[in-house]
Amino acid sequence: MKAAGLKTGMITVMLMAAGAVSAEPAQQQIRHAGSQASVAGPEKLFSGAARIDPLFPGTDQINASGAYVTFEPGARSAWHTHPKGQHIIVTHGVGLTQEWGKPIEQIKPGDVVWCPPGVKHWHGAAPNTAMTHLVVTGQDEEGNNVTWMEKVSDEQYSQ
Amino acid sequence: MKAAGLKTGMITVMLMAAGAVSAEPAQQQIRHAGSQASVAGPEKLFSGAARIDPLFPGTDQINASGAYVTFEPGARSAWHTHPKGQHIIVTHGVGLTQEWGKPIEQIKPGDVVWCPPGVKHWHGAAPNTAMTHLVVTGQDEEGNNVTWMEKVSDEQYSQ
Repeated sequence: MKAAGLKTGMITVMLMAAGAVSAEPAQQQIRHAGSQASVAGPEKLFSGAARIDPLFPGTDQINASGAYVTFEPGARSAWHTHPKGQHIIVTHGVGLTQEWGKPIEQIKPGDVVWCPPGVKHWHGAAPNTAMTHLVVTGQDEEGNNVTWMEKVSDEQYSQ
Repeated sequence: MKAAGLKTGMITVMLMAAGAVSAEPAQQQIRHAGSQASVAGPEKLFSGAARIDPLFPGTDQINASGAYVTFEPGARSAWHTHPKGQHIIVTHGVGLTQEWGKPIEQIKPGDVVWCPPGVKHWHGAAPNTAMTHLVVTGQDEEGNNVTWMEKVSDEQYSQ
């Protein structure tokens, strides 16, 4: 055992090698704008047009991923829960969110939503205004970060 | 032991009670814009004017906090490391960042930086242009998320 002789940098490299980011030496990485492709929100999981712009993945160091999600007017996610919760930071437009059994709430830029683990909710745009938010979504030990449920009906959305 | 008779909702509440967020029942929380005060970056840790706008704290569910940090032209953080790393998402303006021993790099809106655990770096605005970024900063089991070091000298900044 020569562990005591290892330098801090080497230990950091070893820890990184066990992580989800990469097996490369620990160094600052810049992903420039345009290097990560946008993804259309699947029709099965979203009503209307939604676009996901990935920012960063979950890792062994920080157990949450980050992404922008942009909803065209009237678009929204299906009902869902998060095993480790989710932070939502509204960055543009006007949005709506609802916790199961509670009233719909309007959210605007600067508003920050915390959805605790297991709480059933949906989020999306206002009927006539698009909305973008940045989501930081926790993931469990198996890498799961969401459980999808039924879509939000027009009746539910218009209440 | 009546654990088998507990409903899922109650278990969720119990898990939340052990967390850093609150001991209240698990429900979606909205922090509206204007409800969290801005904080000036301390002179000891920043050169020039920097403003921190808190977004969300680290919790037992997600081991990272979130905040916007805005640097006036020429302003920058001191050198520092993060025990669990940090994601940086540039949202406005033009910024600079540097890893110890490497060249300064320019960062612009849409760029995403990952600073791994233990990597010594600084970040701030360009000399003539302000910069805002959203940081997601990992924290260790004791809640520590940064180790501060010496300030970035004018000579280092102007290279």
